[in-house]
Amino acid sequence: MAIDHTHDAAKRSWVASANDGITEFPLQNLPLGIFSPPRGDRRCGVAIGNQILDLREAANRGLLNPPAADAVRGEALDALFALGRPVLRSLRHDIFRILAADGGPGDETLLHAMADCSLYLPTTVRNFSDFFVGVHHAIRCGQIINGDDYELSQNYAYMPIAYNGRPSTVCVSGTDIRRPVGLRKRLSEDPLPSFGPCQWMDFELELGFFVGSGNAFGEPVPIADAGDQVVGFCLLNDWSARDIQMFEMAPLGAFNGKSSGTSISPWVITADAMEPFRRPAMERLPNSPEIPAYLHDESDQRMGGADIALTATISTAKMRAAGEPPVRLLQTHARYCYWTFAQMVAQHSITGCSLLPGDLIGTGTISGPTRADLASFFELSFIGKQPFELPNGETRGFIEDGDEIAFGGRCEREGFVPIGFGTCAGRILPALSHAA
Amino acid sequence: MAIDHTHDAAKRSWVASANDGITEFPLQNLPLGIFSPPRGDRRCGVAIGNQILDLREAANRGLLNPPAADAVRGEALDALFALGRPVLRSLRHDIFRILAADGGPGDETLLHAMADCSLYLPTTVRNFSDFFVGVHHAIRCGQIINGDDYELSQNYAYMPIAYNGRPSTVCVSGTDIRRPVGLRKRLSEDPLPSFGPCQWMDFELELGFFVGSGNAFGEPVPIADAGDQVVGFCLLNDWSARDIQMFEMAPLGAFNGKSSGTSISPWVITADAMEPFRRPAMERLPNSPEIPAYLHDESDQRMGGADIALTATISTAKMRAAGEPPVRLLQTHARYCYWTFAQMVAQHSITGCSLLPGDLIGTGTISGPTRADLASFFELSFIGKQPFELPNGETRGFIEDGDEIAFGGRCEREGFVPIGFGTCAGRILPALSHAA
Repeated sequence: MAIDHTHDAAKRSWVASANDGITEFPLQNLPLGIFSPPRGDRRCGVAIGNQILDLREAANRGLLNPPAADAVRGEALDALFALGRPVLRSLRHDIFRILAADGGPGDETLLHAMADCSLYLPTTVRNFSDFFVGVHHAIRCGQIINGDDYELSQNYAYMPIAYNGRPSTVCVSGTDIRRPVGLRKRLSEDPLPSFGPCQWMDFELELGFFVGSGNAFGEPVPIADAGDQVVGFCLLNDWSARDIQMFEMAPLGAFNGKSSGTSISPWVITADAMEPFRRPAMERLPNSPEIPAYLHDESDQRMGGADIALTATISTAKMRAAGEPPVRLLQTHARYCYWTFAQMVAQHSITGCSLLPGDLIGTGTISGPTRADLASFFELSFIGKQPFELPNGETRGFIEDGDEIAFGGRCEREGFVPIGFGTCAGRILPALSHAA
Repeated sequence: MAIDHTHDAAKRSWVASANDGITEFPLQNLPLGIFSPPRGDRRCGVAIGNQILDLREAANRGLLNPPAADAVRGEALDALFALGRPVLRSLRHDIFRILAADGGPGDETLLHAMADCSLYLPTTVRNFSDFFVGVHHAIRCGQIINGDDYELSQNYAYMPIAYNGRPSTVCVSGTDIRRPVGLRKRLSEDPLPSFGPCQWMDFELELGFFVGSGNAFGEPVPIADAGDQVVGFCLLNDWSARDIQMFEMAPLGAFNGKSSGTSISPWVITADAMEPFRRPAMERLPNSPEIPAYLHDESDQRMGGADIALTATISTAKMRAAGEPPVRLLQTHARYCYWTFAQMVAQHSITGCSLLPGDLIGTGTISGPTRADLASFFELSFIGKQPFELPNGETRGFIEDGDEIAFGGRCEREGFVPIGFGTCAGRILPALSHAA
């Protein structure tokens, strides 16, 4: 794995919109996804400027090398990811060759205008698990619930902790999310639970990543190999019904509070595209134990982090009616992940749990240390007690019906072309009246 | 849904072993599963005595009615379960007609000797979630960890609570389970965690059940319809690495402690086969709140429980070497489920979570109120402090390498032919030395 000619900032594409200096999808990005053109079926594609390169058609015309050429004929990226990072890197080289301007004008019949296409989940997401590596989020949520002298649980500094999410509720950006109903309890404000629509509807800004070839049942992935299992990244919104979650948490953890939907951005930013934007792992907390040997790898400590700037915006129904643009809620950064992606993979598999190609893993909410980089309303509004004021005079303690929350992600480094993640957006619909 | 001629105790099959009075799979059971005959591929089948009826072949010969005749041509039962209970009942009638002795001798070329076949997971298990409705287990585990004055969390009497499990680790009975390694902490005995093989390896005796047609994302299943989503049952062993679980639980719940494998019995006892063996829901705990309206249905209260006697046995390596049979560890009963299957479905979907055809849902550990019916070693041995003595002089606080744990389930009622669940068995292999 290395920075190579596909990251060369001087290279341009024959797809004009890829060279406009503002696109998130220049020639140096080449993210993978699943799309359908108008009146066409689902297939694999690559985002390039405001176009999508049709990978199935490229394979049909003999422009891709095996084995990737066969793996991109399906309706999900699972089979491609199963081939692992070396094959994905080879595919990146093929795609770069097809789209680079070196050879003069390209074949426009390989392209579809992205605006005309539908986008889908990139993989089948047979498994979805969600970590808790945003250390500032972990500390602040503990303090909000338990008071300022809250200390992280003992396990936090020893290993990345996580819980299993619900694969069936993972959905692609743009899917509407129905406000859930259920038994709610707003901490000590409510002595007894009551049934009705969620009153503390929240978002959580996270990164997601996808598993490559995976591991056999019963055979852990060694930390030295774990980084190679991370084949790509996306933005992830772990929508959370806080009042429902608060009532259900003891003693098994979150379940229904997280089951109304988990949105992800449609384009998988490959690990190869991310090569120039890696950074050291986060510094250890004061008085932390040594990293356990099964989670420690020198090269992972040196380059296992990621330089991704993250943002969240809100667009309310009133703002849209007035023609006003979305408003930024926060900006944060992937450097606030206390454990690396490789450490999450090693931890996830250490007990023999099998990770399958295309599995989705979330980081957990990536809040930063200051007021401006809190990555959920729970933190931003101190559980609704300090509502957030919008420029148009509206206030928000939590999400209201019609609000649309959108995430963005961007990687920049001197000497390299910036790349973006696209959007992870979702709008909250009113609760079903017959369910409440 | 009703008791009909397929439950008639006077009926016999032309498959002799189905009439021997001891088989778990008489003509009145007809459980569904996935098998492969020697040198054959995977297909749908029905257990009958010591034989398997080849459902794909029966469909090929025109013996089954559509739409089930098409749905049984796959390698998993998902497509069949997606058709829902009315179609499954119609299929049961077709199968009964094929296997009943009324028409004289049957066509033996439709059968395979079960002992020669391989058995697989009945569905693809795209989602697996696990409830906590064994109320005696919930109370006792709380007392063991927190002391005798432990009280159930407030939510317990309001609704069935649950957590998401890991679909990729669900395996069929007979699959070996590798003792996991990880960071362990045996409660207060260990002030600090240590890395190594699990020292508190445990089983949990549960029932599993499978989802039928399921529900659309965002649309809860009303309690009145929820029972029809439960198309069949199995035995489930939620293998648990207690020392790994104890260290990881705060604050997100169990993850790696449950990810070394979850075994299920291969035969799905259909909801139709269970019709004669339904019973009222469990009585409410003293001082319980009223059942919330979204979880209350008169007919479910009257008949939503199940009359299933459950057992667990152990066979150690030493016992097997001496030719000694397995020893019973406990016997318990499905009547100790505090919430019904329908209530679990209604709760699971109330926030809009989609349940998909073939999804697996566990009840949680079904312990009873006395020493003889504790359904995990954690309870049986009081976390290893009161080891269990076996007839050959061995003792067990938890599971040792080479131990095989096997579950059985049986339904009996005056005037009906008893039916059984088959076996859910698994053996613990030593930890991988290179992982520890």
